[in-house]
Amino acid sequence: MKRVVCFGEIMMRLNPKGYLRFVQAKEFEATFSGGEANVAVALSNYGLNSAYVTKVPAHEIGQCAVNELRRFGVDVSGIVRGGKRLGTYYVEKGASQRASKVIYDRADSAIALVEPGEFDWEKLLAGADWFHTTGITPALGDQATKATLDAVKTAKKLGVTVSCDLNYRKNLWSKEKAKEVMTEVIEYVDVVIANEEDAYDVFGIKAEGSDVTKGEISHEGYISVAKTLVEKYNLQKAAITLRTSLSASDNLWSAMLYDGKEAYFAPEYKVHIVDRVGGGDSFGSGLIYSLLSGYNNQKALNFAVAASCLKHSIEHDFNLMSVAEVEALAGGDASGRVQR
Amino acid sequence: MKRVVCFGEIMMRLNPKGYLRFVQAKEFEATFSGGEANVAVALSNYGLNSAYVTKVPAHEIGQCAVNELRRFGVDVSGIVRGGKRLGTYYVEKGASQRASKVIYDRADSAIALVEPGEFDWEKLLAGADWFHTTGITPALGDQATKATLDAVKTAKKLGVTVSCDLNYRKNLWSKEKAKEVMTEVIEYVDVVIANEEDAYDVFGIKAEGSDVTKGEISHEGYISVAKTLVEKYNLQKAAITLRTSLSASDNLWSAMLYDGKEAYFAPEYKVHIVDRVGGGDSFGSGLIYSLLSGYNNQKALNFAVAASCLKHSIEHDFNLMSVAEVEALAGGDASGRVQR
Amino acid sequence: MKRVVCFGEIMMRLNPKGYLRFVQAKEFEATFSGGEANVAVALSNYGLNSAYVTKVPAHEIGQCAVNELRRFGVDVSGIVRGGKRLGTYYVEKGASQRASKVIYDRADSAIALVEPGEFDWEKLLAGADWFHTTGITPALGDQATKATLDAVKTAKKLGVTVSCDLNYRKNLWSKEKAKEVMTEVIEYVDVVIANEEDAYDVFGIKAEGSDVTKGEISHEGYISVAKTLVEKYNLQKAAITLRTSLSASDNLWSAMLYDGKEAYFAPEYKVHIVDRVGGGDSFGSGLIYSLLSGYNNQKALNFAVAASCLKHSIEHDFNLMSVAEVEALAGGDASGRVQR
Amino acid sequence: MKRVVCFGEIMMRLNPKGYLRFVQAKEFEATFSGGEANVAVALSNYGLNSAYVTKVPAHEIGQCAVNELRRFGVDVSGIVRGGKRLGTYYVEKGASQRASKVIYDRADSAIALVEPGEFDWEKLLAGADWFHTTGITPALGDQATKATLDAVKTAKKLGVTVSCDLNYRKNLWSKEKAKEVMTEVIEYVDVVIANEEDAYDVFGIKAEGSDVTKGEISHEGYISVAKTLVEKYNLQKAAITLRTSLSASDNLWSAMLYDGKEAYFAPEYKVHIVDRVGGGDSFGSGLIYSLLSGYNNQKALNFAVAASCLKHSIEHDFNLMSVAEVEALAGGDASGRVQR
Amino acid sequence: MKRVVCFGEIMMRLNPKGYLRFVQAKEFEATFSGGEANVAVALSNYGLNSAYVTKVPAHEIGQCAVNELRRFGVDVSGIVRGGKRLGTYYVEKGASQRASKVIYDRADSAIALVEPGEFDWEKLLAGADWFHTTGITPALGDQATKATLDAVKTAKKLGVTVSCDLNYRKNLWSKEKAKEVMTEVIEYVDVVIANEEDAYDVFGIKAEGSDVTKGEISHEGYISVAKTLVEKYNLQKAAITLRTSLSASDNLWSAMLYDGKEAYFAPEYKVHIVDRVGGGDSFGSGLIYSLLSGYNNQKALNFAVAASCLKHSIEHDFNLMSVAEVEALAGGDASGRVQR
Amino acid sequence: MKRVVCFGEIMMRLNPKGYLRFVQAKEFEATFSGGEANVAVALSNYGLNSAYVTKVPAHEIGQCAVNELRRFGVDVSGIVRGGKRLGTYYVEKGASQRASKVIYDRADSAIALVEPGEFDWEKLLAGADWFHTTGITPALGDQATKATLDAVKTAKKLGVTVSCDLNYRKNLWSKEKAKEVMTEVIEYVDVVIANEEDAYDVFGIKAEGSDVTKGEISHEGYISVAKTLVEKYNLQKAAITLRTSLSASDNLWSAMLYDGKEAYFAPEYKVHIVDRVGGGDSFGSGLIYSLLSGYNNQKALNFAVAASCLKHSIEHDFNLMSVAEVEALAGGDASGRVQR
Repeated sequence: MKRVVCFGEIMMRLNPKGYLRFVQAKEFEATFSGGEANVAVALSNYGLNSAYVTKVPAHEIGQCAVNELRRFGVDVSGIVRGGKRLGTYYVEKGASQRASKVIYDRADSAIALVEPGEFDWEKLLAGADWFHTTGITPALGDQATKATLDAVKTAKKLGVTVSCDLNYRKNLWSKEKAKEVMTEVIEYVDVVIANEEDAYDVFGIKAEGSDVTKGEISHEGYISVAKTLVEKYNLQKAAITLRTSLSASDNLWSAMLYDGKEAYFAPEYKVHIVDRVGGGDSFGSGLIYSLLSGYNNQKALNFAVAASCLKHSIEHDFNLMSVAEVEALAGGDASGRVQR
Repeated sequence: MKRVVCFGEIMMRLNPKGYLRFVQAKEFEATFSGGEANVAVALSNYGLNSAYVTKVPAHEIGQCAVNELRRFGVDVSGIVRGGKRLGTYYVEKGASQRASKVIYDRADSAIALVEPGEFDWEKLLAGADWFHTTGITPALGDQATKATLDAVKTAKKLGVTVSCDLNYRKNLWSKEKAKEVMTEVIEYVDVVIANEEDAYDVFGIKAEGSDVTKGEISHEGYISVAKTLVEKYNLQKAAITLRTSLSASDNLWSAMLYDGKEAYFAPEYKVHIVDRVGGGDSFGSGLIYSLLSGYNNQKALNFAVAASCLKHSIEHDFNLMSVAEVEALAGGDASGRVQR
Repeated sequence: MKRVVCFGEIMMRLNPKGYLRFVQAKEFEATFSGGEANVAVALSNYGLNSAYVTKVPAHEIGQCAVNELRRFGVDVSGIVRGGKRLGTYYVEKGASQRASKVIYDRADSAIALVEPGEFDWEKLLAGADWFHTTGITPALGDQATKATLDAVKTAKKLGVTVSCDLNYRKNLWSKEKAKEVMTEVIEYVDVVIANEEDAYDVFGIKAEGSDVTKGEISHEGYISVAKTLVEKYNLQKAAITLRTSLSASDNLWSAMLYDGKEAYFAPEYKVHIVDRVGGGDSFGSGLIYSLLSGYNNQKALNFAVAASCLKHSIEHDFNLMSVAEVEALAGGDASGRVQR
Repeated sequence: MKRVVCFGEIMMRLNPKGYLRFVQAKEFEATFSGGEANVAVALSNYGLNSAYVTKVPAHEIGQCAVNELRRFGVDVSGIVRGGKRLGTYYVEKGASQRASKVIYDRADSAIALVEPGEFDWEKLLAGADWFHTTGITPALGDQATKATLDAVKTAKKLGVTVSCDLNYRKNLWSKEKAKEVMTEVIEYVDVVIANEEDAYDVFGIKAEGSDVTKGEISHEGYISVAKTLVEKYNLQKAAITLRTSLSASDNLWSAMLYDGKEAYFAPEYKVHIVDRVGGGDSFGSGLIYSLLSGYNNQKALNFAVAASCLKHSIEHDFNLMSVAEVEALAGGDASGRVQR
Repeated sequence: MKRVVCFGEIMMRLNPKGYLRFVQAKEFEATFSGGEANVAVALSNYGLNSAYVTKVPAHEIGQCAVNELRRFGVDVSGIVRGGKRLGTYYVEKGASQRASKVIYDRADSAIALVEPGEFDWEKLLAGADWFHTTGITPALGDQATKATLDAVKTAKKLGVTVSCDLNYRKNLWSKEKAKEVMTEVIEYVDVVIANEEDAYDVFGIKAEGSDVTKGEISHEGYISVAKTLVEKYNLQKAAITLRTSLSASDNLWSAMLYDGKEAYFAPEYKVHIVDRVGGGDSFGSGLIYSLLSGYNNQKALNFAVAASCLKHSIEHDFNLMSVAEVEALAGGDASGRVQR
Repeated sequence: MKRVVCFGEIMMRLNPKGYLRFVQAKEFEATFSGGEANVAVALSNYGLNSAYVTKVPAHEIGQCAVNELRRFGVDVSGIVRGGKRLGTYYVEKGASQRASKVIYDRADSAIALVEPGEFDWEKLLAGADWFHTTGITPALGDQATKATLDAVKTAKKLGVTVSCDLNYRKNLWSKEKAKEVMTEVIEYVDVVIANEEDAYDVFGIKAEGSDVTKGEISHEGYISVAKTLVEKYNLQKAAITLRTSLSASDNLWSAMLYDGKEAYFAPEYKVHIVDRVGGGDSFGSGLIYSLLSGYNNQKALNFAVAASCLKHSIEHDFNLMSVAEVEALAGGDASGRVQR
């Protein structure tokens, strides 16, 4: 069984029930997630040996986060306990023309203030086939940046494939700071995942002729972005997700993959959204699973897009689809007929 | 007031709230239903004298099932108490490309293990105008098959119109067994209800040129299926429901009716789905009601399709629309404007 | 900060959760609303000094209504306490072809039986820039009619702009009675808000060539209705909302405004509905806000339509969108992309 | 099977969840009850042929009330449909020193405004063994008083045993009016149920040496009250419930019965309260059941007190204990050990 | 109407439903509270003109806190908007021998990082009769300490009575730091509220012969503590709450008051606990209300103890009892009988 | 870290919310438990290396059970997947004099029909320090008996300490059958846990002078039962739990331990019950933990009783107290004071 190690934050996600706005809420559903944690859970769910590395407080709320990972089979033996708080974020689900909203309360979380030496990467990455992190983790601050660099360097040294989802977060750092740090991180990365905005925000790479808010997407533009990424940073592969937001309730969803030679495009799905958060992460986990399983590029991309298409129909951040369910959609059955 | 007697199982249905997957559920909504029970409730709701015959355990969970039928006005005096368990099934609601899932836990239910002589059909069917059952009931096992045959034979003898929804369930029996048993049952049936797959699965009757998963529906194909059913089994009428599953969230829905001479097709509705389970049963009850009310074939079919179209907008299995509400849609008002 | 005084009823709204029908409900969500109260809350939410005038019982359920207004910042100092009951209404949310239903239980509410002299309008309207009421309030009975007339007369005398949403309610009074009373009320009104049916039901004014249930809307017809209203009743402005009900789940929504010289039409939105009740009121509050803010007619209308478009995505009656959120949609971003 | 007919109102009961105060509630649990309806449900639950006579509106909320009675097996064929509203009341559950609160909103309910001739008592009471009503029903107004008198007179004529729970409600009528009406009603009553306050409030009969709010209860005082009732009004039996309210969470509970010759006292239970509303009604239904079942006076009283003791542990108004469960407690097992 | 200004933090309180432990929770009830906010709400509820001064973030979660205060009638015009986060705390309700748990996540909240000059105390306290804060606010950090000192000094200057609940929080500061800061704060205080532990933890004042964990309480000990406080810090009054924790479900509760001359003791209540958090604050608000209302010392103390006794029966932190309800208990009716 | 392997069933537990009776439930809380699973979870929670061995269906409901064990850190690698159904049971929580009820629906569960060779006990028990099972497992049927005997024999062979909770279930087998099977099982057992009824029901051993339903407990009687067990079956230790059921809401709880030489009695606690199910199992896990931790007999017993006392305050079957929390109570602090 292939082993994947993911590294990043795990936060408490609080959202009002259904479509209530924040100011209408009297109670919040509490789940636990984070860009890399979402990947770890999906990979465990696909049947891989999936481990998560992070730091959470020693109190019961920290324990809840650990428990949620364990519940879905993630190896939590590499999680350090300590620090003062668990990062938190609030999600208000949009509908029709009303956009979803996310409010972050994640400053000074345990993982953001991780101290040097708290993670023994040689040990944590022993036996791993793949290491995954995102641009969110170094954005948490200098201490988290240091830990991220330690991780990718060790992975590189041990011959572990490294993937990184750029995931630019404007609330966490400036574009300038992001470019400076990520330029160092990407040196150790093999597979980059991004959306068009990320590539521009972090590295200043922009596709010609596209306007995301207008829903204008040019295949050539995406190819040029992916090609630039792969060539400039000496990557094995770059994958870009393609979202057209028709409304908060309906999106078009697809992605492309470039392997240094050829560009592959997946079919586009029209998704009726149950919960859009975690959509990008579910693409990442789908891609890691399918590449680790030896699928060819087109099939791997199709699996990843089908997986993330299905994620949009699931509440909360984790993608809890099985391989068989994803394969069924990737194989062409989008009818949603009752399975008895 | 016309009296209809329905016979079959009543199960506990457990479903997670909203769109949660099974593995996310911490609580289940509990309702009670079954293919024939759904018909009995709808008919009571339409104002008919509707009775349900089944067997449930003497304990409180069995009582809950009885109570739910009573709540909607069904005559439960013919329900036998005993046996060890109530059949149970779990429903996970799908959305967009994610299909709904049903897990059955119904083996050895009270009705499946009903013993000879527990139902006094002469008495139960006295004064009845119509008797309804489905292909699910004999599929529960030899004892239930025996009871079903006793019922339809007695109904025939007493001149009660008999309808049967083929409802093939692959988890309950093989196609071979189904064909063997249903060939005997159908001898006593006047009106058959089916979808295209049922006719094929049970009797090997297949329409040419249709591929359900591809949403290709040919009117001629359906006519040929219905005609074959009516002629081969000497029926008064055969009705076939026509579903095109665009996704788990949106379906096209219609039906056709063949009376041995002519074929009738209802208008097709695009339904935005709240709960799809029980959709077929709501067609059956709509048809029984409208035929018993003396509607002509086209009007009867239109009523049944409008009724089942509306069922898709209702949570859980029972169709709780009134005659007036169904008539309004059948009459052409699909605008869904607020009724004050 | 501009001050707006709204006058009318506030009721308890009870609705089953999600899409449950009344007969399936074991609990009701309890919120508080009313045509004019919905306007008062939205205006407070937009940042205006918004006051509500009504009468509610002195018991705790009456207090709940007051508390809900306070919660959203409405000035409740003009609310009189007394009377025996709070009006109540029940809402069942429709979906697809199934229409929403509203059952009223509002007779003999505190405000319907308000006694002469209970409201000191000179004091209540001192310093106000705008006064708003609807055709529902005088429909509550003779005592409420008297209070409404006192209010609009005083407003006129004090130079306060007066708006009235016609809002014909067939359960409260006949068309004849409505015409008689509203003909007196409109004498003191500056801005009228209506839908096409209201103008016909109350004043017998009908657009040529329109059939609302068929979704046929003619721009010329609306202009003629608005023009007739403005000219016949000497108004400053008449606004008419334009709804095409595709189903209970999807509507088209727009509006037009006529200022005595020119007619303005807003863009039309396709809304996927979360809760349709309060949609008209949210147009009214959007219009009052934008006119009070000095927007030109086209921009004011566009703001009001965008505001009410967004209301359809919010649970319960109050429109809880901020000015910035409405402006974003009015400015053209209907993509519903996640706001982080 | 003995047949009992109960007559009175059925209301919607709305209560916040758990121990929330009214002003904290965002949703209400909705059940249906009423002093006599509670008796009808308990008797059906005990296995008797129990019918309820009332009037409810034709709309869906009225239907909910009918459905709730049907759910528990009550014969609802005598319920008249019509009128404008269903009476409603709000319950806030107290705890410790904080008292429970009830707010009534029941004026002008369908049953309060019942019109002459709407109930055909000869038919409704045909075949009945017992008729039960309470002092609440005539208190609803002159029309309800008329119907009550019609009912008890017909019952008397037909030889049906008549019971009446005095149940004085100060919000519905004055003591003077109550005395006037109830003096006429009691002429036709065989068995009276009361608490000490009722006898005083309605008929001015007061026990010496008791102060209910101080929890001082004298056996002799109760005997004198019961004796006065029986002798003055020529009754077969008078039963008085004895409650000592230690707090809203804990009560002492017992009762006495006088049959014109001897006084019987039941054991006293200390009850830890789940829901106290309906406690008195559960005594009444226990007494009717046990007397109809031919128990001797002491055993009948003990059954009634055990039944109502157990009611205090059940949410909402209906007493849903089985005969076997009540017998177990009456037989001395108060240990509450798990029944597997 | 007397005006009271309270100053401190307002936090989001998150608690699992019922008696679930943190690690069992899938959702949290969200309310808003804080030691001084609880006092402000209770005083508004008692009918006083109550204002709250604090700082909350400009985002929607901050708005929720403001809305909750407005809902209960608190004047929020003195609340500053800004800063990055709202303090949060988690409450797990105990039962029987299992203690309740509180986890704080309040560092770096908006109010803790308030900047000099953000509060204009001269304006905020204009027209005030009373100012209330607690030892929690200065414990939030140097900036909050500075603001607290500014407030109490201005209050003193303007002749506003100042009360302070010592409320020592060991997670926020050391005893040494507390003593240093509170020694400066108390210089401006007129009325101190404390429990025995507070006086010892903050000022090193300990009663002889008491052991709180053993439930041994000596009246003389409390008098000596109160006397020491009043004399040493030149106070008008010192009040000490007396809690005996029999278990997490049952407590004994009382208090004493010393006015420099005489010591008063209130009756002791045995409380069956619904929610214990906010118990101390409800004593403070009761005392402020009764003293401002001119009650004599004994009556004021009795009111405060009755008020806080009742708080223990209410969910969440706010004491939502009316003056009449508190007076009823203080007047001796602890029977908890249903109020209809 | 000590390793404990537990073997038995894991079922889905369905219970109505709060104190609702089964017939009132519209939804059920769904948790997963079983006598031995409860022990495995508690031991994992105490920090031991705890593994669970069972068989569950391969479908999602089976996965939910596995997930719940993983969530609390239990090693699930020894769980076999297959079979047709997961055992289910329903719990109705009692209160005051109303007893809790349990309805089992566990026949033909995956573990009951486990086939020979499905468990490789040599491998499963390698490295284990302790093996625990109960009398429920062999009661599931001959196949489960066979697996149980295989397990205890292998444990004995490998020198693993074996404990068994007698746990007689009258619904599963007769006393005769129980005696026959358990007499074989106990041959391999080192530590027996029981309540007085179990010893009598399974082995016919009865204490003189005790009547459990009357709450009469004689220390000498328990010593004689324990002594008989130890001597007759050559045990190391026998522990007996002592419950006095005052009501469904309040119990007295203690236990005794006999080690072949001396008898130890723990302090008795009065527990106010939140959820009584799983109380016995929590004693077992407390005892295993404390004995494995090298506590002396008295201290071990005290720990076990304190642990199970606290379990009664926790919802559902699992005991989720930490070692520190148990130690605090065992150390004498039963005050339940808030832990901040």
